[in-house]
Amino acid sequence: MMNAPAHGMGTGPRSMAPHPVPQTDPSLAHLTGDAARLFKELEDLSKDKSGVSRASYGPGECRAFDMIEEFARSEGLHTSRDAAANLVIELEESAHDQEYILVGSHLDSVPQGGNYDGAAGVIAGLLCLVEMKRTGFKPEIPVRVIALRGEESAWFGACYLGSKALLGKLDESEQELTQRDDGRTLREHMADCGAEVSRIAAREKLIDTSRIKAFFELHIEQGPVMIARNLPVAAVTGIRGNIRHRRISCIGEAGHSGAVPRWLRHDAVFATSELITRIDDHWTTILQHGGDLVATCGILSTDPQHHAMSRIPGEVTLSFEARSQYEHTLAAIEALLHSECATITYERKVKFEFDRPVKTPPAVLDENLIERINNACMEEGLPVEAIPSGAGHDASLFANAGVPTGMIFVRNRNGSHNPEEDMEMDDFIRGISVLYRTITEFNL
Amino acid sequence: MMNAPAHGMGTGPRSMAPHPVPQTDPSLAHLTGDAARLFKELEDLSKDKSGVSRASYGPGECRAFDMIEEFARSEGLHTSRDAAANLVIELEESAHDQEYILVGSHLDSVPQGGNYDGAAGVIAGLLCLVEMKRTGFKPEIPVRVIALRGEESAWFGACYLGSKALLGKLDESEQELTQRDDGRTLREHMADCGAEVSRIAAREKLIDTSRIKAFFELHIEQGPVMIARNLPVAAVTGIRGNIRHRRISCIGEAGHSGAVPRWLRHDAVFATSELITRIDDHWTTILQHGGDLVATCGILSTDPQHHAMSRIPGEVTLSFEARSQYEHTLAAIEALLHSECATITYERKVKFEFDRPVKTPPAVLDENLIERINNACMEEGLPVEAIPSGAGHDASLFANAGVPTGMIFVRNRNGSHNPEEDMEMDDFIRGISVLYRTITEFNL
Repeated sequence: MMNAPAHGMGTGPRSMAPHPVPQTDPSLAHLTGDAARLFKELEDLSKDKSGVSRASYGPGECRAFDMIEEFARSEGLHTSRDAAANLVIELEESAHDQEYILVGSHLDSVPQGGNYDGAAGVIAGLLCLVEMKRTGFKPEIPVRVIALRGEESAWFGACYLGSKALLGKLDESEQELTQRDDGRTLREHMADCGAEVSRIAAREKLIDTSRIKAFFELHIEQGPVMIARNLPVAAVTGIRGNIRHRRISCIGEAGHSGAVPRWLRHDAVFATSELITRIDDHWTTILQHGGDLVATCGILSTDPQHHAMSRIPGEVTLSFEARSQYEHTLAAIEALLHSECATITYERKVKFEFDRPVKTPPAVLDENLIERINNACMEEGLPVEAIPSGAGHDASLFANAGVPTGMIFVRNRNGSHNPEEDMEMDDFIRGISVLYRTITEFNL
Repeated sequence: MMNAPAHGMGTGPRSMAPHPVPQTDPSLAHLTGDAARLFKELEDLSKDKSGVSRASYGPGECRAFDMIEEFARSEGLHTSRDAAANLVIELEESAHDQEYILVGSHLDSVPQGGNYDGAAGVIAGLLCLVEMKRTGFKPEIPVRVIALRGEESAWFGACYLGSKALLGKLDESEQELTQRDDGRTLREHMADCGAEVSRIAAREKLIDTSRIKAFFELHIEQGPVMIARNLPVAAVTGIRGNIRHRRISCIGEAGHSGAVPRWLRHDAVFATSELITRIDDHWTTILQHGGDLVATCGILSTDPQHHAMSRIPGEVTLSFEARSQYEHTLAAIEALLHSECATITYERKVKFEFDRPVKTPPAVLDENLIERINNACMEEGLPVEAIPSGAGHDASLFANAGVPTGMIFVRNRNGSHNPEEDMEMDDFIRGISVLYRTITEFNL
């Protein structure tokens, strides 16, 4: 189903053959047993009716933190909790003014989600430290691993809670958000976990980002590209920002489907279909010029109170979302959306009403780090292909805070946020082998 | 709102100026008071919370029948009820083997509907007989007026009940349909009104159509064309048939809106929008070649159980209806619908599932009668323009039973089936003046 047929829309690399299967073993193949065990323990402690549930700043997440911390200590690593209640792991306690490389991701999951989204990045960093400890290797620049809290928006309706708190970017109003199940505020949940809620409410920066030489996040791919391209590991080229309209209304005029000729119609469905088709044309053009864009109308409906088979539809509502790695592409598609609506308004005698758009800027990943990751891939005998991240990640917070940031994607079947997430352990080990090479070969 | 701007889609007569206002009085202007009084009485006896309700083979319709019959008798006309409980009015009782011209329409309404849909045609025929009676005019071919029962589908879910019963075309299963409010069957309701339900169930033809020289129905226009064109009265060129799909499904594949690139998407909304836009292109082409077509997707929706702003829509359902005066155009649009779906299936990796289409054939109106009506319009100082009927009418049953049939539309604002129906009495009088000329100048 996910394999790209050889015919089609003429956009994207579907006519290219998938990459060949790698012929060499990953350099950290000996960590396969440890990795499998850690994922299994994590799954066991957070099992739900279906999949796993590790609530942000909640019980499942706390059990995961304790389990990871306990394992780290059993391997002789140094652990601590920061002021936002995130878990920090190091080879040994480092000096306050020491520069370091930060590796991390999150340990929470969506309700009844998959076991790999987030946790893969934490376990990857942890196993890199374990490898260093067991082999006695000390990197030129110390490596610190961070397990972040509350990345998923499913629990409180806001995301990146742990990294926002750490970077002084959690709004006080966000602390008042209530948890979907127990109704208690984020502030209470944070305090329960030991976070310093008043410093966070004051938007105090709890981490000195000037000391972070680089931030790396390994994460499962949440789309189907790497499966389709037979690509086990990839350097992420950028994290797409987005522009979203929750509700655009196309207002026409209802009428008798048989008695009103085309020239007197104000048909909201034909107008909206033309709008979407015109946006699709622009999308294709942007891709053909090498741009990066995805566009989605996830929700589309005539008015259930008034629609009927024999009635010209007088109203359609739709959502609209565009994502791109490039700010200028998001600005272009927003402008095109409005200019196409203006043309259609004129030609089809309908009008469009827009709610206020919500915008998230793209996160630019560091060119130098992307090159280092690509080099590490090649040293591991892996193919190299540019993959953008369509979903947001903690990494984007660090990137936008001025920290040079790199991301490594590991191939994963069936998307994320569902129990069917399916990352093969062999791909994961290839991923941490790339991560390990990247961070250990890092120098000034 | 209904006036056509001078710019636009380039299809249809929107760049033509509306017709000039007629400079002469209608020849039956002296019947204006009678007409207004009859409509007022009819409205008073069938008033609902909003608009009027005259249930098919039900109380409101029966009161209307009694009122119309009483007025006819008070004018010295002969009345009777036929075996399907329709009301028949004549100058005097005619011989069984006599050829005659039949004029009629229906007296029921939709629930909380308008006062003119149907009733205008009955009152028009009645007032033609009144004019003959009062002036002592005896036409060469006798004129019979019929008030039909149960034209609206709103009450039993099936339409043209009175004319179907009369023509031996009411299915026995249709007699078992239950009324929306009281739950009793059509058979019971028919029997209450005096119809011979067993003859009807046997699909016996209750009228000798070979004796009907012509059938005429005057009706309000249910679309906005005559308002837009400043056309008080028009000969109808044909009654559009239709093809309907209640439910077409476009099945794609849901996915993360940010992480799946265009070439790996199976987006049901973009696919459906392209389908509708392609149908619109064909529609425009057909109109540009002088064809007759309207097309409507009245119901369109992503799946409310699974859609979300950040989810590629995996399914869209839509209704589709096309109407045309020409059978070959309906066949063409059906074929185009399937061929476009096949192309889109191939290009966008979705599939389309169709329910079984429901088809109603067009009714061809008699060329000779259309010409007679047009001539009568010119004699009345009225402009002439061809208007198709988008809605079905009792007239289509007579036309399809082989009776030469003509229809006269009277201008009406705000469509029909709602309390805002708005026919001006002056336009109605112009309509019956045209009808009177047409039927009195009729000869063999």
